[in-house]
Amino acid sequence: MRALIVDDNRVDLALDRAEPVPAPGEVLVRVLVAGICETDLQLIRGYKGFRGVLGHEFVGIATTGRFAGQRVVGEINCSCWTCDTCRAGRPGHCPSRTVLGILGHDGAFAEYIAVPDRNLHRVPDKVDTDVAVFAEPLAAAFQIPAQLPIARTDRIVVLGDGRLGNLCAQVLARESDHVTVAGKHPSKLALLERLGISTRVVNASGLEAGFSNQSQEGADIVVDCTGSAAGLATALELVRPRGTIVLKTTIAGEQTLSLAPVVVDEITIIGSRCGPFDLALEALAAGRIDARTLIHDRFDLTDGVRALQRAAEPGVLKVLIDVGADAG
Amino acid sequence: MRALIVDDNRVDLALDRAEPVPAPGEVLVRVLVAGICETDLQLIRGYKGFRGVLGHEFVGIATTGRFAGQRVVGEINCSCWTCDTCRAGRPGHCPSRTVLGILGHDGAFAEYIAVPDRNLHRVPDKVDTDVAVFAEPLAAAFQIPAQLPIARTDRIVVLGDGRLGNLCAQVLARESDHVTVAGKHPSKLALLERLGISTRVVNASGLEAGFSNQSQEGADIVVDCTGSAAGLATALELVRPRGTIVLKTTIAGEQTLSLAPVVVDEITIIGSRCGPFDLALEALAAGRIDARTLIHDRFDLTDGVRALQRAAEPGVLKVLIDVGADAG
Repeated sequence: MRALIVDDNRVDLALDRAEPVPAPGEVLVRVLVAGICETDLQLIRGYKGFRGVLGHEFVGIATTGRFAGQRVVGEINCSCWTCDTCRAGRPGHCPSRTVLGILGHDGAFAEYIAVPDRNLHRVPDKVDTDVAVFAEPLAAAFQIPAQLPIARTDRIVVLGDGRLGNLCAQVLARESDHVTVAGKHPSKLALLERLGISTRVVNASGLEAGFSNQSQEGADIVVDCTGSAAGLATALELVRPRGTIVLKTTIAGEQTLSLAPVVVDEITIIGSRCGPFDLALEALAAGRIDARTLIHDRFDLTDGVRALQRAAEPGVLKVLIDVGADAG
Repeated sequence: MRALIVDDNRVDLALDRAEPVPAPGEVLVRVLVAGICETDLQLIRGYKGFRGVLGHEFVGIATTGRFAGQRVVGEINCSCWTCDTCRAGRPGHCPSRTVLGILGHDGAFAEYIAVPDRNLHRVPDKVDTDVAVFAEPLAAAFQIPAQLPIARTDRIVVLGDGRLGNLCAQVLARESDHVTVAGKHPSKLALLERLGISTRVVNASGLEAGFSNQSQEGADIVVDCTGSAAGLATALELVRPRGTIVLKTTIAGEQTLSLAPVVVDEITIIGSRCGPFDLALEALAAGRIDARTLIHDRFDLTDGVRALQRAAEPGVLKVLIDVGADAG
């Protein structure tokens, strides 16, 4: 089968990759469409030393299992379900987990992917395949309200106007009336403005004067979706005393910063990763999230290397990879 | 009056310092006993650039106000009570606050200190003055259960066996049955063992093998009282996925560390500072906290410089400064 393979800091299209052999409990899924995420670009640059088929955002047709013949999306953590962590209700943190297209498990930029049956969710009929492919990143955005209570009066700043920042802002704007996105790209911010979410342009020298003064105190919650080492320091400047910073993006390598303000101002910092697929699919089915305007380009799997290059260009939001036809 | 004055990275005894003049709302308190804290030692080394009378842990006799003639302890943050932050219920974070002996306000290593009347708490008759002087650091320890819910089954590790680590461990051991203190000083750890709190010796090369395996998963809560830049990195190694790290000590300067584990393991980091005096005094009155065994030495105010040197020696817990007699 055709597949995009990452190895030794480069990615190539293979034409004769063997189809994955499902392990016990796994289902072979025929991929229809896949989405490119910032993590994919980091993996190509060597993050986590991953080798194999890239890709973890996908919609496909299950060939067997509970949803045989139906459109499915899949949670990415493949857990053992027997260790202390899994039994404590934290399977996403299973120490022996593999992760689709990220850690020890081939991914979705291929004609077929093997996925644990219990990881699959059926795509509601009314959700188009191009929209359903956002289930995984949108679930990650829904993890924020799952982790911390949000009030309608909370002043929230989302740092970063990229793929994840956009989805986080849309999710949070349903919980609070005071969401502002701070980003570098006027065209990306315009998408959010059109959805009624307020935005601010930041430049290389930082935030414009007065930005932190949403109130005298600063923001109740700052969500860092910058993917930049500077994100946390900026968040610490913007958050009010006893406020909360949500770290949404992993930064490879070490960072240098002063943590004294965390103690003096009694800040809470919460790391946030994967989230609830059911809420994401429900929101997409109800049309409460605008995913379609995030699609900036699409390529056939055969042009997958170009697709990845395109996704790395500044100003580009979601790039899709068309893999197979939905023949039903 | 006599007073210990910090200025230009040194501390000296003044014999003729003018008595403080209480501002509106302030009360003149005649100091009986004061305690030396790690922050005092940092202030002498230049932290925050403080100049003036040092000291923020004290018991005294109020000369006027609500508690005139009675023994009092005092909260250290002097707030404006009119700004957004104060009106939002966070006076301890008032941006224009002064802090007794720390920021813009003379402290308690002197015969008299001026304190806002509303900051004062009467010392219950049954609490000895030497014990009441622990109200301020003990309140800081009580801030931890005030910030996060703690279950009896929570596995808690306190990093650091110093003054604050000891008090935090004692407070947390009343909430959970699984508190362990990791420290470098066998004599300090022995005090905790005698109170029924389990301990582990750590050395320069880190924690002993197997320490993190309280369970397969790691600790639910790690409290960093090390006062060291390495504390957070150690805490990240010990905490379980979705666990909580409480940062209890400020570290001057910048630190370098990798924050990716915070996101991947969805860790919560909470900064924690001053706490509820009422709970601290109640616990001291009920004899639920052993403060007395922490008193390692005491000096008259006239020997205050020696007292500060003594408090900086390794292995020394609380050093008290005797200022005035409790003539009533």
